[in-house]
Amino acid sequence: MAKRVYTFGKGINEGKAEMKNLLGGKGANLAEMAGLGIPVPAGFTITAEVCIEYYKSGKQLPKGLQDEVKTALKKAEKAMGAVFGDVGNPLLLSVRSGARVSMPGMMDTVLNLGLNDETINGLIKKTGNERFGWDSYRRFVNMYGDVVMGLKPVNKEDHDPFEEIMDGLKREKGIKSDLDLTVADLKELVKRYKDIIYRRLNRNFPTDPWEQLWGAIGAVFESWNTERAVLYRKMNGIDDSWGTAVNVQAMVFGNMGSDCATGVAFTRDPATGEKIFYGEYLINAQGEDVVAGIRTPQQVTVEGSQRWAGDNAVPEAERKGKFPSLEECMPEAYNDLVNVYSKLEKHYTDMQDIEFTIQNRKLWMLQTRNGKRTAAAAVRIAVDMVKEGLIDKKKALLRIDPAALDQLLHPTFDPKAPKNKIAKGLPASPGAATGKVVFHADEAEEWNKRGERVVLVRIETSPEDLKGMNAAQGILTQRGGMTSHAAVVARGMGKCCVSGCGELEINYSTKEIRVKGNVIKEGDYISLDGSTGDVMLGEVKTIEAKLSGTFGIIMQWADEVKKLGVRTNADTPYDARVARDFGAQGIGLCRTEHMFFEGDRIKAVREMILADTLDGRKRALAKLLPMQRDDFTGILEAMQGYGVTIRLLDPPLHEFVPHEDANQMEMAQEMGISLEQVKAKVASLHEFNPMLGHRGCRLGVTYPEITEMQSRAVFEAACILKKRGVDAKPEVMVPLVGTVKELKMQKDIIVETAEKVMKEHGIKVDYKVGTMIEIPRAALTADEIAGEAEFFSFGTNDLTQMTFGYSRDDSGSFLPEYIEKKILPHDPFRVLDRDGVGQLIRMAVQKGRERRPDLKVGICGEHGGDPSSVEFCHMVGLNYVSCSPFRVPIARLAAAQAAIRHGQEKSGAVKPARVKKTKPAPKKAKPKKAAVKKAPAKKAAAKKKPAPKKTVAKKSVKKTVKKKK
Amino acid sequence: MAKRVYTFGKGINEGKAEMKNLLGGKGANLAEMAGLGIPVPAGFTITAEVCIEYYKSGKQLPKGLQDEVKTALKKAEKAMGAVFGDVGNPLLLSVRSGARVSMPGMMDTVLNLGLNDETINGLIKKTGNERFGWDSYRRFVNMYGDVVMGLKPVNKEDHDPFEEIMDGLKREKGIKSDLDLTVADLKELVKRYKDIIYRRLNRNFPTDPWEQLWGAIGAVFESWNTERAVLYRKMNGIDDSWGTAVNVQAMVFGNMGSDCATGVAFTRDPATGEKIFYGEYLINAQGEDVVAGIRTPQQVTVEGSQRWAGDNAVPEAERKGKFPSLEECMPEAYNDLVNVYSKLEKHYTDMQDIEFTIQNRKLWMLQTRNGKRTAAAAVRIAVDMVKEGLIDKKKALLRIDPAALDQLLHPTFDPKAPKNKIAKGLPASPGAATGKVVFHADEAEEWNKRGERVVLVRIETSPEDLKGMNAAQGILTQRGGMTSHAAVVARGMGKCCVSGCGELEINYSTKEIRVKGNVIKEGDYISLDGSTGDVMLGEVKTIEAKLSGTFGIIMQWADEVKKLGVRTNADTPYDARVARDFGAQGIGLCRTEHMFFEGDRIKAVREMILADTLDGRKRALAKLLPMQRDDFTGILEAMQGYGVTIRLLDPPLHEFVPHEDANQMEMAQEMGISLEQVKAKVASLHEFNPMLGHRGCRLGVTYPEITEMQSRAVFEAACILKKRGVDAKPEVMVPLVGTVKELKMQKDIIVETAEKVMKEHGIKVDYKVGTMIEIPRAALTADEIAGEAEFFSFGTNDLTQMTFGYSRDDSGSFLPEYIEKKILPHDPFRVLDRDGVGQLIRMAVQKGRERRPDLKVGICGEHGGDPSSVEFCHMVGLNYVSCSPFRVPIARLAAAQAAIRHGQEKSGAVKPARVKKTKPAPKKAKPKKAAVKKAPAKKAAAKKKPAPKKTVAKKSVKKTVKKKK
Repeated sequence: MAKRVYTFGKGINEGKAEMKNLLGGKGANLAEMAGLGIPVPAGFTITAEVCIEYYKSGKQLPKGLQDEVKTALKKAEKAMGAVFGDVGNPLLLSVRSGARVSMPGMMDTVLNLGLNDETINGLIKKTGNERFGWDSYRRFVNMYGDVVMGLKPVNKEDHDPFEEIMDGLKREKGIKSDLDLTVADLKELVKRYKDIIYRRLNRNFPTDPWEQLWGAIGAVFESWNTERAVLYRKMNGIDDSWGTAVNVQAMVFGNMGSDCATGVAFTRDPATGEKIFYGEYLINAQGEDVVAGIRTPQQVTVEGSQRWAGDNAVPEAERKGKFPSLEECMPEAYNDLVNVYSKLEKHYTDMQDIEFTIQNRKLWMLQTRNGKRTAAAAVRIAVDMVKEGLIDKKKALLRIDPAALDQLLHPTFDPKAPKNKIAKGLPASPGAATGKVVFHADEAEEWNKRGERVVLVRIETSPEDLKGMNAAQGILTQRGGMTSHAAVVARGMGKCCVSGCGELEINYSTKEIRVKGNVIKEGDYISLDGSTGDVMLGEVKTIEAKLSGTFGIIMQWADEVKKLGVRTNADTPYDARVARDFGAQGIGLCRTEHMFFEGDRIKAVREMILADTLDGRKRALAKLLPMQRDDFTGILEAMQGYGVTIRLLDPPLHEFVPHEDANQMEMAQEMGISLEQVKAKVASLHEFNPMLGHRGCRLGVTYPEITEMQSRAVFEAACILKKRGVDAKPEVMVPLVGTVKELKMQKDIIVETAEKVMKEHGIKVDYKVGTMIEIPRAALTADEIAGEAEFFSFGTNDLTQMTFGYSRDDSGSFLPEYIEKKILPHDPFRVLDRDGVGQLIRMAVQKGRERRPDLKVGICGEHGGDPSSVEFCHMVGLNYVSCSPFRVPIARLAAAQAAIRHGQEKSGAVKPARVKKTKPAPKKAKPKKAAVKKAPAKKAAAKKKPAPKKTVAKKSVKKTVKKKK
Repeated sequence: MAKRVYTFGKGINEGKAEMKNLLGGKGANLAEMAGLGIPVPAGFTITAEVCIEYYKSGKQLPKGLQDEVKTALKKAEKAMGAVFGDVGNPLLLSVRSGARVSMPGMMDTVLNLGLNDETINGLIKKTGNERFGWDSYRRFVNMYGDVVMGLKPVNKEDHDPFEEIMDGLKREKGIKSDLDLTVADLKELVKRYKDIIYRRLNRNFPTDPWEQLWGAIGAVFESWNTERAVLYRKMNGIDDSWGTAVNVQAMVFGNMGSDCATGVAFTRDPATGEKIFYGEYLINAQGEDVVAGIRTPQQVTVEGSQRWAGDNAVPEAERKGKFPSLEECMPEAYNDLVNVYSKLEKHYTDMQDIEFTIQNRKLWMLQTRNGKRTAAAAVRIAVDMVKEGLIDKKKALLRIDPAALDQLLHPTFDPKAPKNKIAKGLPASPGAATGKVVFHADEAEEWNKRGERVVLVRIETSPEDLKGMNAAQGILTQRGGMTSHAAVVARGMGKCCVSGCGELEINYSTKEIRVKGNVIKEGDYISLDGSTGDVMLGEVKTIEAKLSGTFGIIMQWADEVKKLGVRTNADTPYDARVARDFGAQGIGLCRTEHMFFEGDRIKAVREMILADTLDGRKRALAKLLPMQRDDFTGILEAMQGYGVTIRLLDPPLHEFVPHEDANQMEMAQEMGISLEQVKAKVASLHEFNPMLGHRGCRLGVTYPEITEMQSRAVFEAACILKKRGVDAKPEVMVPLVGTVKELKMQKDIIVETAEKVMKEHGIKVDYKVGTMIEIPRAALTADEIAGEAEFFSFGTNDLTQMTFGYSRDDSGSFLPEYIEKKILPHDPFRVLDRDGVGQLIRMAVQKGRERRPDLKVGICGEHGGDPSSVEFCHMVGLNYVSCSPFRVPIARLAAAQAAIRHGQEKSGAVKPARVKKTKPAPKKAKPKKAAVKKAPAKKAAAKKKPAPKKTVAKKSVKKTVKKKK
């Protein structure tokens, strides 16, 4: 039978960091810290497997667990020099959840466990602090009564019963702060708490510490499946089947007096990535107080404290007195902390998020974990750590979530735009948000659904606010620090957040904020700067994102390893230039039809559609020709030297005709025909399932003259550019091919036109003709199609539609339910379906390359910018992915990660120079300078993959040449 | 170098019947006849390969051909005792085309070749008939001048120049009939013909017989590529690359005097198949005269002549004098003919279509070939020939075109009735219908009730029109293809339907159709031919379908050999019974939604759709439950002992709500809600691509209560029947499955409901749960799906739609062009696309059976009734095909043919008793009684296919048992 309980603490450490899946992140790291000789209160972890057993057996704790727990607790008692339940020298325990992935605030915790009317005396005797003893006891009864026994408000309008009792007593005594409660008051509270538990639940508060312990363990397991925990997992893609471990640990107290403290810190700035020790603490407090944001915490370092004072206009003299740093208050403990954090960062080779408690000036570490960070911080930390020799470039690349780069690529406020700053909070999560004020999560969701941009304003947030936060542009809270719920969650979401903006008076019932004489009502615009903490009245203009130097370095490293090319989907010269700036190497999809709507063009398009004769259509097309030629000239020029894949007309013709009476009348007048004729034409173009109708190359088959005009425009543009010395590389792409014969027919027109135009201009253009693979039959018959196509581009939007039989436009009526009911793991339009659609892609690549070994294959659906889908594209050996300009960096990084994960980096890239022959570098090797492009690439590549030896070598040479152009 | 010329004639025969591809049908059969000792004018055949060479080399006759022809001609001269070009004893030749498939009248022929001003004298001397000589000469000059030299009317309005001359001379001489032309007149004609040739073409008529011969050979090759020949081949699917052979043959003359004759005959009646010698002849005529229909030919046999006289009210005395039979006129020649035809039929073991000439009382055979025949004749001849011991059952089965059986199952128009064709649509469902035009389903029902025959005319049909379609004789639609709603439903009903007749302008408000200047009003008669797509004005007399006994015999033989089961698609007890009568062994597709439209049900369905709550839906579903239960009871009973596959609700809900204002108002009143609410609901159900929308099991996922109600109805019906001793075998089928998880979810509901209902009734029902495979992804992940599904049924309509990306309802705008331009070989909705859709089917069968070896697999798309598709189903090893009731016989025959063609007949079937061990019977063996069911089947089967030995044996036993019930 598998071991169920793992102890930790000095000398009795059984777990380690690698055992996260079994012990949870917290438990594994506690064991790891203990193993490093870092002071950790002793305890033990009950594995997540026990949680799984618990649910499988109908919520029974497994047999034998009891003995293991008892043995483990004995070890902890010995390590801490106290005994659980002992009247004279009681060991108190904390009982905490800990899943393999952090779910902050989602699950339950019980502190001070082991107290009862007898052990309380031992605690008081031990600490010599009666008030602390009774305060701990009343906290324990409150927490246990709530979490384990389940005494909660009956409905949402109710107050918390314990809070009510507390407020009642305060009223009776005429006191305001908890700190003013006397020992007698605290005793009275314990009594009243126990009374209400008995009255409401008809059960006595348990006095047996062991009964308390088993109750708490069960409660933690139960909390794995609360509604909010399930929702959180769903939103964060965490598997329901993992379960949570339970950490039972000796209590240490940061609230035993003024030589006690508690705090949280990051080893680097989690917002910017700057290499400074960044933390907050509270003297004489329990850890929960820092996170809860009830008291505004102080800074750990002098530097941090001074910065904070500067931001809050507190003079230095005053600062040191009123808001001293830990460095100043408890220099020894601070030094210990600095040593510990340095050790931890080196050990984990990553930025750490730590929790500590100082009890009677002694430092205890309660937690360490890899710290959450903004995308900007992730990039900076990764680059810095490579420079510091902590990690190599590959690790650095794997450290950054490609999807999070989005944060860096989105607009910030225009510094020149007028701003009416009305308040300042903490810069909890960077970014810029502007929207209408709402005060409730439900409203945020609701308003968002009807298309409004909103800012969610809360006194503080709780896990119940998750959905609303998700729906909002940004979050503003009155209370809470940089590590408050709002701040942590917002950073995770990559969403702008300003927290702890104490100046605000938020009134939920009148739905208004009052601040410095301003009254902001629900629906009024405000703007938040998550990077400064500024709160502004009204809408503020935003500007494009600007990327830092470290971002560029990461992108360069990504390009060094990735094998996939990254192109962009761009329909205009402007888009093409933006994408070039983001590093796109060519256009994978240029949709010509978008050009058809601009200005007067639509008239010519409609004239073409209305024409009943070939001559009529040709006349109309002749008007379009120069306009299309100009478009192509601009795009080909912007991408010079890189391939530009131009897709021929794709949508059904009815997308170009007006459907409303007034517009039809206008069209009739313009065309000089009757309204009836227009209506008849529009009606004749109607389709039941336009998605599967007369579109794509089917138009080109029926109207070869359209194909001819578009080809002519492409090749005229290319010839004109060539004459000007611009290296135009058009690739004409035939859409919606389902049989090789349609492709052949279209290709014949394109090639004939190309030859004709080139002859007219006396210019040779390097061009290709290929096809979209977006119809299942095209994938199934890819061998035949590759006989004609020089390249394939997977149109995974349509391919997904047809492979699943889902209309993108209509699937909203069932797809969300499919994902919710877990029939599908993801929205297949966002994340490529590997089993179905992916199978077709794999098949098509294989068949296509069998027929034409040098077939170039890419993807141009939305999936080209989704990291998981990019990985799949790497796995099946595509040549490139193509995505929207702003997702190009994401695709570049995702492509690099895929190459690293599958051990298929571009030959020579990032490999340390010391790599010998074909053996992979040992995992722990961290060379100071990781990137050595001069590594014996060819040899290594040749040994690894003997077959495509030549090709690999050739390709990398080719790429290099391209870059030099 | 390949032999280019093959001689034939007594003693010099080089070809044979099997060489059709090389020698063409005519040449091969001439050689074959000569080989049998049948009198054939000697000659030779230039192969079709020479024709191919001719076109490849830029219309040059190949070197060496000349020598071969000369050698061959020498042999013919010897055989016929005459010499080509000899002035004293000239041999005259015919030069005829002959492709491997007959293209009647499409290519050119030259007769009497070899005549000139000198050889004419030899001919006259030989025959002693000056008039005959000159008549032959003027015919030759006319024919050669036209066919070889190309003297034709300049444009379409012009008269034929030779005819003009003839008419001119007749006018000059004041005579009317050609027969009145004197020798001098004929001489004059020869002169004038030659003159106009010289004047118009500036070339002399060639006098050298060899020059004449080479000219004629070239002309025959040229005629392969005339416009009409190319068109004919396109229409009949004949390959352009085959080329034609040229037959050069000694002339024999039926027009040399009254002891000469010429005729054509069928060895059996080609209309009925009756075993009578059926032929027509003319005395003193050339063969062309019989076919041309200028003179009314007489009957060959006395019996035929008497029947003819009876039909034409000619008294026997008069008949014998005026219209004597050949049997009476030339009894010796007739006897020779009878001997020859008997020999030929026995030799070819098929009904022959023969041409003969009698020259001076001597019989010469000019052609024999397998005769074309009606479907009824094909069936009767096949059965008779087995009885006569001419062929075995397998050959008999292969002789009948399955698709032609359609003719036998539906009413047809009286071929003699006058027809006023006004438009042509698609032949969507065969049969003949005549009735009064109505435009609405309600009216169709109403008029029908009062005894009127009606034709329902709609722009397109929807499920709302079902009742009207049922009441109508036939359905005519303006829009929609062969698989549109109207077409599919009509075929299911066995009702005549012409769809997609785009020429019609249908106006519902004025209640009229406009087409080509005709205005057809409500109540006017029209007639539809569902087998051709013809639309006719007025009433046309129809003949009811009548099935002969031989039809039943063929069907029985088919069942003996076929391995595929044949089920039917039936939605009502009536359909089920019809299909049983046609031999369906179970239902492969019962569409439950069609039941939703009948009577008051639609109200309950709409109530269900409108309900906003689960309870509301359940209330409405409870109303539907007893009705559905009754339907299922009827269907399961009609198919007792056989599996009945019931598909759960499939179409999107918007198909059930009214879309017209008046109907919406009615619905609002019925439901007691506002019109706005109805409109809002209808609008909310609108989809852009309903084909890919919220339908199939997606409905069952969203509304599990529908699945539950339908399952309950199925199992309650089954339990009720079981109690009554009826062997009900329901198979519940989940539609539109794309992922195994949706199937699992639906299956859980079905199984749970089944168990519950069976428990309630205390009855055990033998049932299965399976799925449609109609979404590409389902085929791709068939292994996973087979983990849950007990059977697969390929929904090839939808699978074709999604694999090609073609909407059935919209593809009419491009599909005809695709077929015309040969981008597609067939309409993929009619004939299964083996490369694409078929690949998915093959893959799914393989993956499915790997996962679940006893997986039952069938097809229930329209393709289940198409012979080529049925063959494919046999090839990939499906268990059964399912098709509309009226196509069941077609499928049975097609399945039998597939089994025979692939040498995979059901073990023991049709094998002659004499078969020894595993050796196949020699091809030529023609046992008198071919069908011996007692053959050592098991042994043979076991030797042939060792693996599925047991299964095969079991299955055939099972089938036999079933039949006995």
